[in-house]
Amino acid sequence: MDTASREGAMQAVMHVEGTLEAAVRRGEAPGHPPGLAAAIRHAVFPGGARIRPQLCLAVAGACGEGGSPVAATAAASIELLHCASLVHDDLPCFDDADLRRGKASVHKAFGERLAVLAGDALIVMAFEVLGRGAATHPERLVELLRIVGAAVGTPHGISAGQAWECEPALDLVQYQRAKTGALFSGATMAGAAAAGFETAPWRALGDGLGEAYQVADDIRDVFGNPDDLGKPVGQDAAHARPNAVHALGLDGAVDRLEALVAAAAESIPICPGRKALRLRIIEEAQQFLPKKLRRAA
Amino acid sequence: MDTASREGAMQAVMHVEGTLEAAVRRGEAPGHPPGLAAAIRHAVFPGGARIRPQLCLAVAGACGEGGSPVAATAAASIELLHCASLVHDDLPCFDDADLRRGKASVHKAFGERLAVLAGDALIVMAFEVLGRGAATHPERLVELLRIVGAAVGTPHGISAGQAWECEPALDLVQYQRAKTGALFSGATMAGAAAAGFETAPWRALGDGLGEAYQVADDIRDVFGNPDDLGKPVGQDAAHARPNAVHALGLDGAVDRLEALVAAAAESIPICPGRKALRLRIIEEAQQFLPKKLRRAA
Repeated sequence: MDTASREGAMQAVMHVEGTLEAAVRRGEAPGHPPGLAAAIRHAVFPGGARIRPQLCLAVAGACGEGGSPVAATAAASIELLHCASLVHDDLPCFDDADLRRGKASVHKAFGERLAVLAGDALIVMAFEVLGRGAATHPERLVELLRIVGAAVGTPHGISAGQAWECEPALDLVQYQRAKTGALFSGATMAGAAAAGFETAPWRALGDGLGEAYQVADDIRDVFGNPDDLGKPVGQDAAHARPNAVHALGLDGAVDRLEALVAAAAESIPICPGRKALRLRIIEEAQQFLPKKLRRAA
Repeated sequence: MDTASREGAMQAVMHVEGTLEAAVRRGEAPGHPPGLAAAIRHAVFPGGARIRPQLCLAVAGACGEGGSPVAATAAASIELLHCASLVHDDLPCFDDADLRRGKASVHKAFGERLAVLAGDALIVMAFEVLGRGAATHPERLVELLRIVGAAVGTPHGISAGQAWECEPALDLVQYQRAKTGALFSGATMAGAAAAGFETAPWRALGDGLGEAYQVADDIRDVFGNPDDLGKPVGQDAAHARPNAVHALGLDGAVDRLEALVAAAAESIPICPGRKALRLRIIEEAQQFLPKKLRRAA
């Protein structure tokens, strides 16, 4: 990445963090319940890699509107929903995870009741943020709500994906597409919607990157370092869940990841910043893998 | 109520049920996870008194737009959020309630995991519904999102209200206003927003009715019949929660309820249907009480 695009990417990171901070701070207005506010802050900061909001913002940027409030709030809304899903995923009735992003999970730190409520409040906050950011472009808000809602609700969003784990028989493709892929395609399509572009052509990019991320997650679960990841490894084997490394071997899984990223990058629709976005996607997808497994470009 | 307004009210009921049915059915599209879809249907149908969506629709009607898709979806969105809050309230980590609306609570019927997810999916569905209904009036959507989000999120909506139960010391007024009042004022203000009216003047009606409903809930908890209510009574005494009957006696509590309803009805802002709405509010608030406690008008 050259210096100018590195600076652009850094500005985008700051933009998302600032929008998240503003949203979380609104929940800390006078008269707020302190435990819930602390649980929400714990769930959102410090963040992970913020891959999904960066992707959303990168698409809006490629469409010529990376710096607008609509794009920033669309990206922040995607991240708040991601955080909400992690909080509820970690609950004792699901993964019963003690650790997340290298610190206590929300229910470990604040109790199960505040974890349920923090997840709920984060979902609501995501839609409030979306509405505020699109106040100057209400006609884009209808499409943004449709896309973001579909990415996290049911029948094909995150809630549905998680619900497949409660079924006696699981359609793996449907499960992974809903649980992981939906928010990636939601991120790319929301980025296009925030810029007033047609959204459907942007689905393939998100779908492909979501699938690649799933393969990378499988690889990390086998070869990752729990200290780097901030969460335990070996969970797929422990829960008898399918894993690309078990199915394809390490080399096969890395090949698959690279092919998915290349195809995703090729799928980027015609837009002002197509070429730069293509390069950035290929470069940033390298971050999906633990350092020791990255191949030279 | 005369025959014409009775017919109008019945049409409004059908309108809300139809919009809820359409929303729930979208979650049952091909490829949906069956358990989650069943849990959502169980949470929404058959409904309770549907007081909040009827209130929303009545306000939109008094503003001259009771029959519009924006009003119907605003009302349905309020009810979906109410259903979501009941599902999560009933969870083992909160009230651990076995019964709701006379049948098994969602987690009793479908397990805790699907109850968490059904609540999440219902919150998302509420915002999707709002977006779809306001597609022809995107400029009203910004205000609707703001109002509905504030009613159910944090710092002053339902999530915050429930979170006060997790605090060592509880500000009772703040707690009840957030947990019960916020969705009533959300309903009246959303009704006005759906009709393109200024929303702030409609807050007092919702606040007053919310407070009256809380008093009625206290009375039902002491004097209600569990078979009529579809849930157990005596919960406030059992959980050492404050109750208006314990504080004021039965007569004092009924007086308070009537005064709150009268003041709420007086607060209705100037609008085309002010007089009819005033009468309807006073009449329907009678339904808050168990039959044996209703006084002659």
